Amino acid sequence: MLIQERETTRNWQPIIQQFEAIAGKNNVVRRKEELLVYECDGLTSYRNRPDVVVLPRTTAEVAAIVQVCAQNQIPFVTRGSGTGLSGGALPVDGCVLIVTTLMKQILEIDLENQRVVVQPGVINSWVTQAVSGAGFFYAPDPSSQIICSIGGNVAENSGGVHCLKYGVTTNHVLGLKVVTPTGEIVDMGGSLPEMPGYDLTGVFVGSEGTLGIATEVTLRLVKTPESIRVLLADFTSVEAAAATVSDIIGAGIIPGGIEMMDNLSINAVEDVVATNCYPRDAVAILLVEVDGLEVEAAENTKRVEAICLQNGARHVRIATDADERLTLWKGRKAAFAAMGKLSPDYYVQDGVIPRTKLEYVLKTIAELGDRYGYYVANVFHAGDGNLHPLILYDNAVPGALEQVEELGGEILKLCVKVGGSISGEHGIGADKRCYMPEMFSPADLETMQWVRQAIDPQTIANPTKLFPTPRTCGEAAKPSASQAFAGVDRF
Amino acid sequence: MLIQERETTRNWQPIIQQFEAIAGKNNVVRRKEELLVYECDGLTSYRNRPDVVVLPRTTAEVAAIVQVCAQNQIPFVTRGSGTGLSGGALPVDGCVLIVTTLMKQILEIDLENQRVVVQPGVINSWVTQAVSGAGFFYAPDPSSQIICSIGGNVAENSGGVHCLKYGVTTNHVLGLKVVTPTGEIVDMGGSLPEMPGYDLTGVFVGSEGTLGIATEVTLRLVKTPESIRVLLADFTSVEAAAATVSDIIGAGIIPGGIEMMDNLSINAVEDVVATNCYPRDAVAILLVEVDGLEVEAAENTKRVEAICLQNGARHVRIATDADERLTLWKGRKAAFAAMGKLSPDYYVQDGVIPRTKLEYVLKTIAELGDRYGYYVANVFHAGDGNLHPLILYDNAVPGALEQVEELGGEILKLCVKVGGSISGEHGIGADKRCYMPEMFSPADLETMQWVRQAIDPQTIANPTKLFPTPRTCGEAAKPSASQAFAGVDRF
Repeated sequence: MLIQERETTRNWQPIIQQFEAIAGKNNVVRRKEELLVYECDGLTSYRNRPDVVVLPRTTAEVAAIVQVCAQNQIPFVTRGSGTGLSGGALPVDGCVLIVTTLMKQILEIDLENQRVVVQPGVINSWVTQAVSGAGFFYAPDPSSQIICSIGGNVAENSGGVHCLKYGVTTNHVLGLKVVTPTGEIVDMGGSLPEMPGYDLTGVFVGSEGTLGIATEVTLRLVKTPESIRVLLADFTSVEAAAATVSDIIGAGIIPGGIEMMDNLSINAVEDVVATNCYPRDAVAILLVEVDGLEVEAAENTKRVEAICLQNGARHVRIATDADERLTLWKGRKAAFAAMGKLSPDYYVQDGVIPRTKLEYVLKTIAELGDRYGYYVANVFHAGDGNLHPLILYDNAVPGALEQVEELGGEILKLCVKVGGSISGEHGIGADKRCYMPEMFSPADLETMQWVRQAIDPQTIANPTKLFPTPRTCGEAAKPSASQAFAGVDRF
Repeated sequence: MLIQERETTRNWQPIIQQFEAIAGKNNVVRRKEELLVYECDGLTSYRNRPDVVVLPRTTAEVAAIVQVCAQNQIPFVTRGSGTGLSGGALPVDGCVLIVTTLMKQILEIDLENQRVVVQPGVINSWVTQAVSGAGFFYAPDPSSQIICSIGGNVAENSGGVHCLKYGVTTNHVLGLKVVTPTGEIVDMGGSLPEMPGYDLTGVFVGSEGTLGIATEVTLRLVKTPESIRVLLADFTSVEAAAATVSDIIGAGIIPGGIEMMDNLSINAVEDVVATNCYPRDAVAILLVEVDGLEVEAAENTKRVEAICLQNGARHVRIATDADERLTLWKGRKAAFAAMGKLSPDYYVQDGVIPRTKLEYVLKTIAELGDRYGYYVANVFHAGDGNLHPLILYDNAVPGALEQVEELGGEILKLCVKVGGSISGEHGIGADKRCYMPEMFSPADLETMQWVRQAIDPQTIANPTKLFPTPRTCGEAAKPSASQAFAGVDRF
C-alpha cells in the first residue's frame, strides 16, 4: 500500500495537545493509517488526507475545537457518516476534520409538539425508529437513510423518495444550535415553525459546512398516514411514463413519491435482487406511492391507476399491505448498488428539471450518452423532476473518468437550459462548484459570498467548497493532482 | 390641521431632481399635504412624515433610486399597501419612502409549473383571482388580503387562516428579484422549490425591508381542493375549545384552518354583522375548515365533529356549500372591525404559543387584563397557536396607550415563557424590536446583524427596524417624541 506524503509547514504538536485536552486523547486521530478512512466521502473519485481528525462529543467541545482552529487560522471540514455524493466532506489541504459520529444522542422527544432534538451524528433512520411506535415519522429519506447522519442531511439539505409530498430537509428543521466558524455558539430558529428575525436556519440548511457546525438539530415529526399504497405501472415508452407523471400532478394528486426507472435499471435490478415484478421488456416503470386516510388513499389509487392506463400502461400492479409494498420498492432501493453488475464503475449525476421537460431531457441524455459512447441508466424522483443519471464506465480505462465528468457536465448544462438546477439533493461540494455560474450571475454569487464572509470572516469552514474559485469552470475546480485518486482499486 | 415641522439639514433639491429623472415628475411626492398619507402604516399609533416619496414602476427604476440613496447615505423605507401592523413601513427620520403601488403587474402565469411571477405592488387576492378559473389558488391569506401587497407579505412573511395546512409566505415564495441596499440587482432562488447555494430567498422573506426591495416575486400556486367544509362548534369553556384543537391535530388531521373566537368577540361580531349563527352565550367557538378530496373532507368532517362533541361542544354546525361557508366565516372576517363597536380603540397583539399551552395562556391573558383593567378579546389562529389578543381601550384617556403597550408586552413575555414567539405573522417592525432579546441571545442577534451588515454595509435599508437599538427594552425602542402621535383623532 502506497501512501503519498504531503509537505506540511504547520507545527501541529501544540494544536494536537489542545485538541487532546478538549476531546480526550482517544478522540484525536493523527496516525496516517487511521487517517486513510477519512480521505473521501461517497464521491470516491476525489481523495485527500486530513492532517488531523477530532471526534468531539458535545457542543462545548465543538466550540473549543473551532476556537483553536480560528485562533490559528486552520481550515476545518465537518464530516458526518461520509455518505455525501458531492465531496462536501472531502478534506482540504492542511485541514482538521471534525467528525460528528460520537455525537449520536437523541436529546429530546416531544411528541405533543411533534418534534425531536438530536445531535448531528444521529443516523437518519434512528429518528423514525424512535417515534414510529407512537405513530410518527421523520419525512426526509435519502437512499442512504440507514447510514447517513442528520448533520450531513442538514449540510446538504437532503431529499429522498417522499420529498415530493413532504418536502426536503429544510422543511423539517425547526431550529439549530450552531458553532459558528468564529467559535461562538448561536441558536437559530427554535421549536416553532416560524420565528421573527432573519431565517438563519434556512440559510444554514444546505450551506454544506461553510457556515459552521450544527451541534443540536430540532426536527419536525409527521404523523404516519393511516393508509399507504404503492402502484407499479409499466410502459413501452419513456414519453408515456413522463406524460403519466405530469398528468398525476396535473390532476391535483400529490403522491408520497413518484419514482421512474428505465429499461437498463430494470434489468440491472432484476439480475441482482430478482424482484420478479419489474417487467424486463418495459421501457420504463413508475412506482407511485399514495398515502393519507384510507378513503383518500383508495380514491387516489383509483385515479392514479386510471391515469396510468389512459397513458398506455400495460399493467398496473397495486400493493396494499406492507409486505407487497416492500417487494415493489425492493428493486428501486437496490438500483444504485445493482449497477455494479453492469459496469465496474458508475458516476451518478443529480440534476433537476421542470417536470414538463422530462420527456425531452431523457431523450437528450440518451443522445448525449450515445455521442460520448457510454450507457446512461436513469433511476430517479420523477415527481419532483429530480434526475439521477448513472453513467456506466470503467475507471481502469485511461481518460474514462474525464470523459464521464464532461458528459455529466453536459447533462447539468442541459438541466439548467430547460429551467432546472445543477443539484437536487446531493449538493455542490467539491464536485460541482464550477457549474454554479451556469445558474447564478456574478452578483448572485457575490451576495452569497457576502453572507459567507459575514459568518466566517477567515473562510476557514470548508473552504474551496460550494463556490467556484476562480469563478469560471476550469482546472481550478478539479481536484489537484495530489488530491485526485481515480478509484478504490488503486490501493 | 396642525402639521409639525421638522428640521432637515439635507439639501434635497439635487436628490429630487435625480429621482424625477428616474421615475418621472409625477411619481415623486414632496408636498407636505401629500406626504401626510404616508406617515404611518396599519400601526396608526406610530407616525412620522417621510422627506420624499418615490413611486417607481420597474426594477431598473428601483435600482436607480436605491443607488442615489446609497451614494448619498440616505435611509430608505419601502412601503406596499401600508396595511402592516408592526410599523414596518413607518418612515424613519430623513428618509426616502419607496412606494411600490405602481408596480402592480402580474408578469407571468405558468400553470403547467404551478407558479406566477408578480411585481411587489400586486394585491394578494389578485393572484388567486387570476388563477382560480384554472383551479388554482395562492395559499397565504392574511385578513387584509383584498388590500395588502405581495411585496409587503414577503417583507413580513405574512400568514393567514389557511397557513395551518398550507404554510406561510416563505413556503410559497420560490424566487425573488431583489435590489440590494447597494443598488445591485440580484436573483435569489428561482422557479424550482430547491436551489443549490445559500437560501437567500428564505432570509429575505420576513426581513422586513432591511435587506433591500423585492421587485419580482415568483410564487407557488396550489391546486384548489375538490371539497371544502366548515364546522362551527360552540363551547361553554375555553378549556374545552382548547382541548378540541389539540385533539384534532393529535388525531393526525390537518384542517385548512382552525380559528377560535371568545365570548367578547362573538358578541361584538353579532352586534355588527349579525351572522345569527354564533351563539351569544358561548364562551368560545371554533371554526374548523377541512378540505381535500370529497371522500377525505367528508371523513375528516365526521372525525372533527366527533372530537368536538367528545369535548363537550353544545352544537356542531356544518357548512358544505359555498354560501353556507361564507355565512360561517363572515363573523370571523369582520371580527377586528367589529371591535370598534365595543371600544373607541384597540391594540392588537400577535404572539405564538405551543398549541398545548392554549388553555393556560388564555387564562393568564384574562388575568393580566383584569390586573391592568382592560378587556382583552381573543380572535385567533388556534391551530398554529397564533394568538391575536385585542386590548380594548380609549386613546383619549391620557396614559392609556402606555398602559396598553405594557400589557401587550406582558402578553408577549408570557408567550416566550411558554416556549412561543413574540410574532406570528405581523412582524417586529418598529413596534416589537425591544422584545427581541426576550427570544434571542446577544450572539443570536449579532449573527443576524452580521448578515444585515453584509448585505447593507451602510445600514440605509429600513434602519432602526426589526433589531433592538440599544439591545435592551427601554425608551430607545419607543418612537421619538416627534414620531409618536397617539391617534388619528389628533388631526
